[in-house]
Amino acid sequence: MRAVIPYKKENAKSRLSSVLTLGEREEFVELMLKDVLNTLSKADVNKIDILTTSIYGVADDIETNVIVSELGLNEVLNQYLTKISEPVMIIMADLPLVTKRHIREITASDKDVIIVPGRGGGTNILYIKDPTHFHVKYYGSSFRTHCDIVKDMSQSIYVYDSFLASIDIDEPQDLVELLLHGHGMAKDYIKQKFDIEVSKERVKLSSAL
Amino acid sequence: MRAVIPYKKENAKSRLSSVLTLGEREEFVELMLKDVLNTLSKADVNKIDILTTSIYGVADDIETNVIVSELGLNEVLNQYLTKISEPVMIIMADLPLVTKRHIREITASDKDVIIVPGRGGGTNILYIKDPTHFHVKYYGSSFRTHCDIVKDMSQSIYVYDSFLASIDIDEPQDLVELLLHGHGMAKDYIKQKFDIEVSKERVKLSSAL
Repeated sequence: MRAVIPYKKENAKSRLSSVLTLGEREEFVELMLKDVLNTLSKADVNKIDILTTSIYGVADDIETNVIVSELGLNEVLNQYLTKISEPVMIIMADLPLVTKRHIREITASDKDVIIVPGRGGGTNILYIKDPTHFHVKYYGSSFRTHCDIVKDMSQSIYVYDSFLASIDIDEPQDLVELLLHGHGMAKDYIKQKFDIEVSKERVKLSSAL
Repeated sequence: MRAVIPYKKENAKSRLSSVLTLGEREEFVELMLKDVLNTLSKADVNKIDILTTSIYGVADDIETNVIVSELGLNEVLNQYLTKISEPVMIIMADLPLVTKRHIREITASDKDVIIVPGRGGGTNILYIKDPTHFHVKYYGSSFRTHCDIVKDMSQSIYVYDSFLASIDIDEPQDLVELLLHGHGMAKDYIKQKFDIEVSKERVKLSSAL
C-alpha cells in the first residue's frame, strides 16, 4: 500500500486568519503535514507521495516523494489514481489528531473502501484497495458523494468512526480540539500561542500569556 | 450496571431557536431521548433512570424510571451517584447518533472510567465502574475536568474515540451531522423539515421543500 497527501502551503488555512498571520499559518500547516508523515511512519506506511502545487511549498527536511501539479485537488488525485496499482490511502494534511492506531485499524479492514468522515460532510481519509477505476470528488458533501461512488461500483465500504480523525483543522474552534486532544508538533506550536478559555457553556481559544 | 440520563424538556436547546420553534424543540428533544433509550435497550441496558426537573416533561409513553429534582445538573448527579452501588453510565439525552455498538464497546472496557468526549471539551458519556466516591463536574471543559478527577482518584481511564458519539445536538450545524449520519426518530423528524445544502466548501442546513 501507499499513502498520498494533498498539500498546499501558500496562503493555506485562510479561515484561521483571524487568529494566525499568513506566516504563522504557513508554519502551522507544515507542522501538521509533518505530524501526519510521522503518524504514517509509526504505522509502517513507508511509501508516501505528497501532491502539491509548488515544490517551494515543501520544506527541505521533508524527504518524502513530492509530485508537483497545477491541477485542482480532484483532477490531480484522479490522474494520480489511474497510475497506482496498489491500495492507496488519501489522507489530508490537516489531520494532526490522527494516530497510528487509526491508520492500522483503517488498513486492517477487509472492505474495499474505508472512509473517515470529517465534520460537515467532509472526507478526511479515504483508503481505496483498488484505485485504478476509482475516482474522487472532494468539496461539498464529499462523504456522501464518496459513499455513492463506492455503491455505484458495487464495492463494499466501511465508515471508520473516530472523533480524533474527524477533526480537520480549519477554524479557530478546531484549535481547541487540538489543544485538548492533541500531541505532536502542530499541537506544541498552537500551545505556545493559545490557551483554552472556559466559560460555563463553551470552551474557546484565548491568547497564551 | 445501570444508565442515567439527565433530561430537560422545557425550553430545551435554545441554540436551535433560529431553526426550530419552542414547540418543535420540545418535540425534538423528546425524540432524541427516545432514540437514546432505544439504543440502550438494544445494547441490553435495562436499568435506566431519567433525571429531570419536572415530571410533566417526560412523555407518558416512556416507561423508564423518572427521578424528579429541582437541583442543578452537577448537584443532582452527584447526589444520585452516592446512592448507586453498581457501574453507572451517565449518558446525555442529546446523542441520537450513539449506537448499540458504542454502548457495548464502552461497557466492555476494563478501565475504571470510560469517557466519551464531545466537541468543544464536553463529556458526552461517562461510564463509572465504582460511582460511590466519584463526583462529576459538567459544563465548561468537563472532559479535561473529568480526566483530572479520575487521575486524582488514582483510577484508570479510557477515552473512547467516536465521531458519532462526539456529536451532541446543540446547534443548527449539528443537525447536518444528524441528517448525514443519523438513523432513528430524531433524524426522521429533522429530515421532514430540513435538507442539506451543498456549496463548494461547506454543507449547511436548508429547508426541506
